[in-house]
Amino acid sequence: MTRSLAWEDAALVAVDQCALPHEYRLLHLRTVDEVIDAINRLAIRGAPAIGVAGALAVAISAAQHTRNGQCDELAVRADARRIADARPTAVNLTWAVRRVAERIPQGAGAVLDEALVILAEDERLNLAVSEHTADLVLRLCGHRPLRLVTHCNTGRLATVARGTALGAIGLLAEAGHVEEVLFGETRPLLQGARLTAWELAEANIPHRLCVDSALPAALAAGMADCVLVGADRVCANGDVANKIGTYSLALAAHQAGVPFIVAAPMSTVDETLADGSAIVIEQREPDEVTTLAGVTIAPAGTRVFNPAFDVTPAELVTAVVTENGTYRPVGARREVAS
Amino acid sequence: MTRSLAWEDAALVAVDQCALPHEYRLLHLRTVDEVIDAINRLAIRGAPAIGVAGALAVAISAAQHTRNGQCDELAVRADARRIADARPTAVNLTWAVRRVAERIPQGAGAVLDEALVILAEDERLNLAVSEHTADLVLRLCGHRPLRLVTHCNTGRLATVARGTALGAIGLLAEAGHVEEVLFGETRPLLQGARLTAWELAEANIPHRLCVDSALPAALAAGMADCVLVGADRVCANGDVANKIGTYSLALAAHQAGVPFIVAAPMSTVDETLADGSAIVIEQREPDEVTTLAGVTIAPAGTRVFNPAFDVTPAELVTAVVTENGTYRPVGARREVAS
Repeated sequence: MTRSLAWEDAALVAVDQCALPHEYRLLHLRTVDEVIDAINRLAIRGAPAIGVAGALAVAISAAQHTRNGQCDELAVRADARRIADARPTAVNLTWAVRRVAERIPQGAGAVLDEALVILAEDERLNLAVSEHTADLVLRLCGHRPLRLVTHCNTGRLATVARGTALGAIGLLAEAGHVEEVLFGETRPLLQGARLTAWELAEANIPHRLCVDSALPAALAAGMADCVLVGADRVCANGDVANKIGTYSLALAAHQAGVPFIVAAPMSTVDETLADGSAIVIEQREPDEVTTLAGVTIAPAGTRVFNPAFDVTPAELVTAVVTENGTYRPVGARREVAS
Repeated sequence: MTRSLAWEDAALVAVDQCALPHEYRLLHLRTVDEVIDAINRLAIRGAPAIGVAGALAVAISAAQHTRNGQCDELAVRADARRIADARPTAVNLTWAVRRVAERIPQGAGAVLDEALVILAEDERLNLAVSEHTADLVLRLCGHRPLRLVTHCNTGRLATVARGTALGAIGLLAEAGHVEEVLFGETRPLLQGARLTAWELAEANIPHRLCVDSALPAALAAGMADCVLVGADRVCANGDVANKIGTYSLALAAHQAGVPFIVAAPMSTVDETLADGSAIVIEQREPDEVTTLAGVTIAPAGTRVFNPAFDVTPAELVTAVVTENGTYRPVGARREVAS
């Protein structure tokens, strides 16, 4: 499967991201609860991917709540709320669920059609995001073999196909402009070590893994030309919520004078939030930190602070790049208009 | 054993820091190679602790190379070099080995006497470091329940007894000035999750563990009043080498306006190095990153960047506190003198 998500025989088919890199396995999800569970435990993860999965879950609900051609709108809307609540920080999930929910009055077929449009759009939008991002990197850094830094996983696994920041890295590599990609393991759930390493090896792009706290030190030591990350929510002022560790990376890039670029589709932009202080940061279970692959790594009963995301203020971000090119925060647009 | 290191029956007795938190086990080391191995694999770790262990290893060598009252100086000096080279970044090891090596001409007994002086000094010096540090924290933050951040392990396990930064936290807690200690797990070898968690629980100090990249985010979110860390080498200008992750913590503290205090004995200060660019940063084995608790977490063959330490520039450090109080960098002393 070249796509990470597909719709086949009334099932959402997804690459099981919990099983990688040890096993490449497909999930076939046929109920709303199965999709919510997959999103909760990060078997499906990545802001664009959970948006598409959420939309298809609403379509599953609509089909299952249709009897004799009549769709039980209230039941589907209740499911839609549960789906949108599966994870709070990435706005793509809410955005996609809302978009397909508008079609509920037109019946299950219309809901599925809209979800399939979102599925199909995702690959095209990601390609546009990646192209604009790669262009910007070359404008900022020059046409030469670049040492790129990334974090978490923003590749084809995090989307339907192609990826965002990692998609741009792929395009740059195809054009011969990547010397090396240095990336953080992304504790606690190791999306970097497990998924980004797997994708970079698959694409034959030179890469090195490090612990997350080594990335800022690498930037300070002059080991990187550009930082590329994705986003889970971009506010009207350009503040960015992304995987925990992004903020320290942005701080270090700023200190080192290295461009810090966020690549994300417009569905990640949430102009209803003025700035990052309004973003709900998901707090996850302690055992993600205190255990690993079933092995306990801290004394029993140790209390944990486990935010899945952090907020990077706009002033540390060189550019947020979408399918439309560089995003202009609302304030900047107003300044131009006035 | 209230001390983490002791000299008993011609053996260096040490708490096995690789076995914690699952098991509290003592090592009895009777040869130079056993001590070097324990230092290499971090069974004995912490800048002050490896200094003391290194000094005692030279004493072991001197005793073993003495026949009929004659010490084979060349053989002991060769061992001393091997011991000093066991780990490159913490200057305490070189410092302690050099100090006892000066006694080699006087025989094995004199070498051991000097090593035992260093052992005995360590607890007293750490108490002084801790007291000065705690005083400074209260001067900077006020006499109130404080939310403190630390990283890696700087407690009694990292020293003969008492600890440095964590020693200060202990004194502050005894005086009722600690609301909570937030600390990083310290990937790759989890000294925070395994050792600091264990020491804070032992001392009954409220604490929460997080992944390393969450500490900068916690500082940005206003969750901390002061950051306290140790050091492996302090340069003449005040630049500090410490466990990987310290730099990003210092950047975030600076950005948040939170004091960032380094607590270390004077044996950690290396005025032969003008600044941090001259510090040798130890690069460790890839499998520390690609495996965790025996479980492989990255695709086979993934290349790794694994620096054990990073360098924090002096301008991000509020104060380096030693047994003599706040350390004044050489440049600052010259300014006063001129």
